Amino acid sequence: MVTHYSFSAGPFPRGFHLITQQVLDAVERWPEQGMLQVFIRHTSAGICINENADADVRHDFQLYFDRLAPENIPGLRHVIEGPDDMPAHIKSVLSGTTVSIPIINGKPALGIWQGIFLCEFRTKATRRDFIISIIE
Amino acid sequence: MVTHYSFSAGPFPRGFHLITQQVLDAVERWPEQGMLQVFIRHTSAGICINENADADVRHDFQLYFDRLAPENIPGLRHVIEGPDDMPAHIKSVLSGTTVSIPIINGKPALGIWQGIFLCEFRTKATRRDFIISIIE
Amino acid sequence: MVTHYSFSAGPFPRGFHLITQQVLDAVERWPEQGMLQVFIRHTSAGICINENADADVRHDFQLYFDRLAPENIPGLRHVIEGPDDMPAHIKSVLSGTTVSIPIINGKPALGIWQGIFLCEFRTKATRRDFIISIIE
Repeated sequence: MVTHYSFSAGPFPRGFHLITQQVLDAVERWPEQGMLQVFIRHTSAGICINENADADVRHDFQLYFDRLAPENIPGLRHVIEGPDDMPAHIKSVLSGTTVSIPIINGKPALGIWQGIFLCEFRTKATRRDFIISIIE
Repeated sequence: MVTHYSFSAGPFPRGFHLITQQVLDAVERWPEQGMLQVFIRHTSAGICINENADADVRHDFQLYFDRLAPENIPGLRHVIEGPDDMPAHIKSVLSGTTVSIPIINGKPALGIWQGIFLCEFRTKATRRDFIISIIE
Repeated sequence: MVTHYSFSAGPFPRGFHLITQQVLDAVERWPEQGMLQVFIRHTSAGICINENADADVRHDFQLYFDRLAPENIPGLRHVIEGPDDMPAHIKSVLSGTTVSIPIINGKPALGIWQGIFLCEFRTKATRRDFIISIIE
């Protein structure tokens, strides 16, 4: 059986943002054993799992991703929505659109340091829509 | 319950190609609520979700990925299958081998701009095999 | 129905390591049709699927990832756990924390060249914990 919950967050400034608690709060019923999946319905933002404790990690991710896919790469054609748009699409593919986490004994079995990040890659973003799916 | 469908596409030229419609057409029965997963059974091609409207986006992805993992990186050892082979393996890991999409009210809940890309990273590729899985 | 199995591996040296057989051995019962998912509970290691035959491929992956996210990137703040730590977090996001594979006729439907890699990104790592989930 699969149960879905819609969920929105933001708008957030460009950067990496912890949304673990908002995701957990959106689930109304947890099965004893199952899978939690979070899907982002956008192409210029991403979702991933990483270190949840030190805000410097989020800073460093933003710094790194901005260097990995900088604005104004020579040869890019998709530029009508601004210089941050095509790099945002690229970063979205590199970070991914889904995270999937086992549910054990009624709660998500994240490692102790793992949190769920919304990766906002647009400079001026709107709210972002997610679908949370519980497989049991 | 999980139902699988085999699916092949291509051969495609090196680049990013929209396969959303082919994936949808390969599914014979959609549950009301569930998950759609597409798995690519290859190590030199990938699959991802991104912007489905502007062909320039696909052009730019290819341009970017070819710069991110260019041919003839000094030190590479796995070169017997040609200079595009090891970069193709690398790009496959960066783009991923699976996409997973919620099914809501009998259809995949992709965002309005989201499409499914086959990422062909070999210069001369053969057909690519996928498995589509429906979880309900 | 979802069934989980805990699984640990390593400690491994920094690099890419095939763990396909260990994963398969940890599953006690295979359904005829289903999904196999492997989740790594860490933020400085990753998991991915790629070419399983040539050890040179694993060498080249390590070489490439170490250049893609080198130590001592100017501007990084999260450096108290050593110069390999923040690059390890970055590589973990790029490689991913989950692999998901269809189960067909009682076995995982990996392509002929596909294997499961543990991507160890720390120089001195401890054992790594995984959760294997079978969806049927």
